[in-house]
Amino acid sequence: MTLQKPVRSSLVKQIAEQLVERIESGSWKVGERIPPEPELVEQLGISRNTLREAVQALIHTGMLEARQGDGTYVRAASEFGAAMQRRLKRSTLLEILEVRYGLEREIARLAASRRTEADLQTIRQKLDTSLSLRHDPQGYISADVAFHIAVARATHNSVMIDLYEQMTESLHMSVGGTVDVKELMDEQAQTHGALVQAIAEQNADAAEEAARSLIQASKTALLEQIQKGSLDL
Amino acid sequence: MTLQKPVRSSLVKQIAEQLVERIESGSWKVGERIPPEPELVEQLGISRNTLREAVQALIHTGMLEARQGDGTYVRAASEFGAAMQRRLKRSTLLEILEVRYGLEREIARLAASRRTEADLQTIRQKLDTSLSLRHDPQGYISADVAFHIAVARATHNSVMIDLYEQMTESLHMSVGGTVDVKELMDEQAQTHGALVQAIAEQNADAAEEAARSLIQASKTALLEQIQKGSLDL
Repeated sequence: MTLQKPVRSSLVKQIAEQLVERIESGSWKVGERIPPEPELVEQLGISRNTLREAVQALIHTGMLEARQGDGTYVRAASEFGAAMQRRLKRSTLLEILEVRYGLEREIARLAASRRTEADLQTIRQKLDTSLSLRHDPQGYISADVAFHIAVARATHNSVMIDLYEQMTESLHMSVGGTVDVKELMDEQAQTHGALVQAIAEQNADAAEEAARSLIQASKTALLEQIQKGSLDL
Repeated sequence: MTLQKPVRSSLVKQIAEQLVERIESGSWKVGERIPPEPELVEQLGISRNTLREAVQALIHTGMLEARQGDGTYVRAASEFGAAMQRRLKRSTLLEILEVRYGLEREIARLAASRRTEADLQTIRQKLDTSLSLRHDPQGYISADVAFHIAVARATHNSVMIDLYEQMTESLHMSVGGTVDVKELMDEQAQTHGALVQAIAEQNADAAEEAARSLIQASKTALLEQIQKGSLDL
């Protein structure tokens, strides 16, 4: 057991903790790029190497992500989220989809039973936004994610919400750029409407049935993408 | 930024990593008690304080758990498992149950579609063990957990298996000691049989239906426990 540069590594750890704090407090948000290196070096009064090691540590835990030629982005908002993202990185798209399908039906049931008026209003807003973006595939995907997360939040089950958000974030990152969503949209517009209506009527069985149709449509669309060779599970 | 005892804290970190290695390699298993302090102090050639700090670090991450007057136990087998256990500690029993219910139905479907002959043999073995333990509540619960994990493994979806094992481990720890399972057993014996038959016949719909009945029986039993005041969600 040789001890290497303990003072240095302890400073790196302190800087890493400061970066974590900025993420967990929300001052750096998931999906956003963090400030450029020179700016952080000056702000924190440390060397470029120390900053790089601290950033590397957060990339290792999965809270940050380096994108070639594009800077460093926030990937997870919490230590749990980071552990989850790290785990999901080692899995296939199909594995994540199957877990999400399992959660999706229970989420539909619980959202129908527990949604408040405020939940319902948010869900409807997110659906309207996604419908208005039907001619903008990238915008549509983000709005669709926001819609599903709004439904998940209406369960008021924090474990369900956390897991679902992590699964969805991971899918969004891996599918977002590759899937041609145009074919999905028409089918989804109908089934999304049915899901929202069931949630509005607090009809758990109908909500689960709508979730099942959505999953079926999504599975079919993904299979088509795979057959066309534009996606690999 | 003051730097405190960097050499000391680095040694603690190295010892902590050695303990993690023993757990991840399986030489210390989940649910088992780790060797007593004096033994580890001698084995590792370190001071009692250093060992205690390293053990504390692993308790903090959730891989170990101290039980009053009974020593220290392994709670999670991996870093992901530890992050998950730490997250689940902050949640209610009901939240975990609802997520597990969501996974359970998808697991039944996938297990029916994908189970190998070896999977089926293991599942049947675990069911037989649980049936033979119907007069030993503690033994029955452990055998029941092993049965459900065997079904989850037949999905061959590693994310599903990891999540389900973590949920189940957490439920086992929190429910294990308190629930009176005798009432559950008779109902479960039948529905477990139906689930295994559906998996044997590779009938996904029937498997999901059996999972649904199991969940219903478990919900009813838990509600009764709550009404009797012997369990708190």
